[in-house]
Amino acid sequence: MKSKSANMTVSITLKQLKNIEYNIIIDNLPKLKFNSKVAIITNPKVAGLHLKTLLANLEAKEIYIITVNDGESYKNMQTIESILDKCFDHKLDRKSVLIGFGGGVIGDMTGFTASIYQRGIEFIQIPTTLLSQVDASVGGKTGVNNRFGKNLIGAFHQPSAVYIDPLFLSTLDQREISAGIAEIIKMAVTFDKDFFIWLENNDLYILDNLKIAISKSVALKAKVVAQDEKEKGIRAALNYGHTFGHVIEKQSGYGHYLHGEAVAIGMIMANALALDLGYLNIDECLRISNLLEKYKLPIKYNIKNKEIFYDTFFLDKKSENNTLVFIVPKSIGGVELKNDINKNIIMNILERF
Amino acid sequence: MKSKSANMTVSITLKQLKNIEYNIIIDNLPKLKFNSKVAIITNPKVAGLHLKTLLANLEAKEIYIITVNDGESYKNMQTIESILDKCFDHKLDRKSVLIGFGGGVIGDMTGFTASIYQRGIEFIQIPTTLLSQVDASVGGKTGVNNRFGKNLIGAFHQPSAVYIDPLFLSTLDQREISAGIAEIIKMAVTFDKDFFIWLENNDLYILDNLKIAISKSVALKAKVVAQDEKEKGIRAALNYGHTFGHVIEKQSGYGHYLHGEAVAIGMIMANALALDLGYLNIDECLRISNLLEKYKLPIKYNIKNKEIFYDTFFLDKKSENNTLVFIVPKSIGGVELKNDINKNIIMNILERF
Repeated sequence: MKSKSANMTVSITLKQLKNIEYNIIIDNLPKLKFNSKVAIITNPKVAGLHLKTLLANLEAKEIYIITVNDGESYKNMQTIESILDKCFDHKLDRKSVLIGFGGGVIGDMTGFTASIYQRGIEFIQIPTTLLSQVDASVGGKTGVNNRFGKNLIGAFHQPSAVYIDPLFLSTLDQREISAGIAEIIKMAVTFDKDFFIWLENNDLYILDNLKIAISKSVALKAKVVAQDEKEKGIRAALNYGHTFGHVIEKQSGYGHYLHGEAVAIGMIMANALALDLGYLNIDECLRISNLLEKYKLPIKYNIKNKEIFYDTFFLDKKSENNTLVFIVPKSIGGVELKNDINKNIIMNILERF
Repeated sequence: MKSKSANMTVSITLKQLKNIEYNIIIDNLPKLKFNSKVAIITNPKVAGLHLKTLLANLEAKEIYIITVNDGESYKNMQTIESILDKCFDHKLDRKSVLIGFGGGVIGDMTGFTASIYQRGIEFIQIPTTLLSQVDASVGGKTGVNNRFGKNLIGAFHQPSAVYIDPLFLSTLDQREISAGIAEIIKMAVTFDKDFFIWLENNDLYILDNLKIAISKSVALKAKVVAQDEKEKGIRAALNYGHTFGHVIEKQSGYGHYLHGEAVAIGMIMANALALDLGYLNIDECLRISNLLEKYKLPIKYNIKNKEIFYDTFFLDKKSENNTLVFIVPKSIGGVELKNDINKNIIMNILERF
């Protein structure tokens, strides 16, 4: 080795010159076969209703079932640690695969566990609620809540496949279906006017129609995520209705409104803002609220204290450097991200609720 | 929207067609300037000795100091959660930067916290021990221990820069310096014969020589990591001495041997295996052990029960599907990964210690 100056800079370049690709299959659950160990993460309700179906279609070296408590209040680091412990108890290795089998909470926790188990293993999403089928299961956002807010700890970790079987929806009640439909309507308003018109003319309580709407929503989401995996731009458009919706969920206590219901009200509020800004016209606002009402989604909300409501925006992690971002429809089928909306304008909107 | 078959497959392709690039600067700490909030993660000892130097060189919107307990026994999820909580208390956002300021434990925990805080933020490594300067700070392996073993929970998350200032080493005692030198010798045996010969002919207790050796080690490691970030192949070669070394650390109780000391003994054991397999010759084995002894590194170990020693191999996560992987030098400057070594051969090696 030659002598050289002791000071130096070493550059390291990690070549990531490949695509991450995976399929989202909207169809009856196919036969799944693995040459490795598999652990299914699920909750007691989904296990009781559907585990038999999954197991009948699943072949693996060893299959473990890890059941966790259901609900947003269990979506925390304690549950993640209990799942990790069970994975180690079962001696899962770096080639093992986790399957998230349930709604959005199960999917988010399965993905996050997979992202940190032995520095990352593969996982698969099999969503069983409409909300998770059209939204949460696609795109690789994983994580948990903590005392500071929702989804504040997590990772971007893409599943290796998503299997969306609408037959699992047969055990959901109509309120849960409607909450999922709110996200479908959100996708249409945000990105696709033709899809919105189709929704106006078709009944999603009919399973064949619902399957078409799921496929369309998933295709739209996949396109957005492919353009902006880590939400540095366009992906934020998916938060239409969510800036207001998150405050509503927080203020009314998680669980009072289903997530999709809070988003429905949030869309109405965002539309009021769009109207004020001269983007949407009254007719378009009415068409959106009519479509939400068709599925018995709430469109009214009583704000008790608008100052507190406004302050609650800033507890959301999306409020980067204390800047609020609102997703505002420019028309049906297109939105704009606004981060320069004056407080007075927002207070004026909140006044009306 | 046209009607279509309800069953469909949506393919999602995430284009990751770009390199992850960062610099590793071996030099006096430069001026660091950030337009965002910064949190320094450190331990009381490093803070007491060197925080003043770091702060004198650091400019940021807001600077927070998060001090955690020192040592491997605190490298766990509880500490990660306490760091996360402090980051939220300080309202760090997605543009904030964490600085890991300390040894390997601090670096691993800073990187892991950065990987899961709001689904991933930027971090910088400023390693202050020789071991972390030549090894842990480069390559993006982050994580914590749990009751099942070392580094079992974590992520691959690359720093945005690594600043290696050998002046921080002035407060280390000779034993810690030697433990770091063990990893330098490891790099030479594993990848670079010329570097090994240079090490034989130069005294690393002289700071200018040590700086050259750090630069060379880091350059070698950067090259390996660039080829195989996620340790699916060649990166495993960096574990030369570690398969045996981890068992020694576990059996003797963490803290009895410094990590580099256990690796030194581990290299001697791996060399004994190499000798048996007809790879290294006795002269090469002696040259390696002489170089280790030159820095007062341990090369002897008393195995009390070789069956227990052997079984302990399998508690390591690197034992995928119960297959043991040994990194065996073929000659000085090149190693081979062996996953087909018969138990009898290993027991025969252990017999001699």
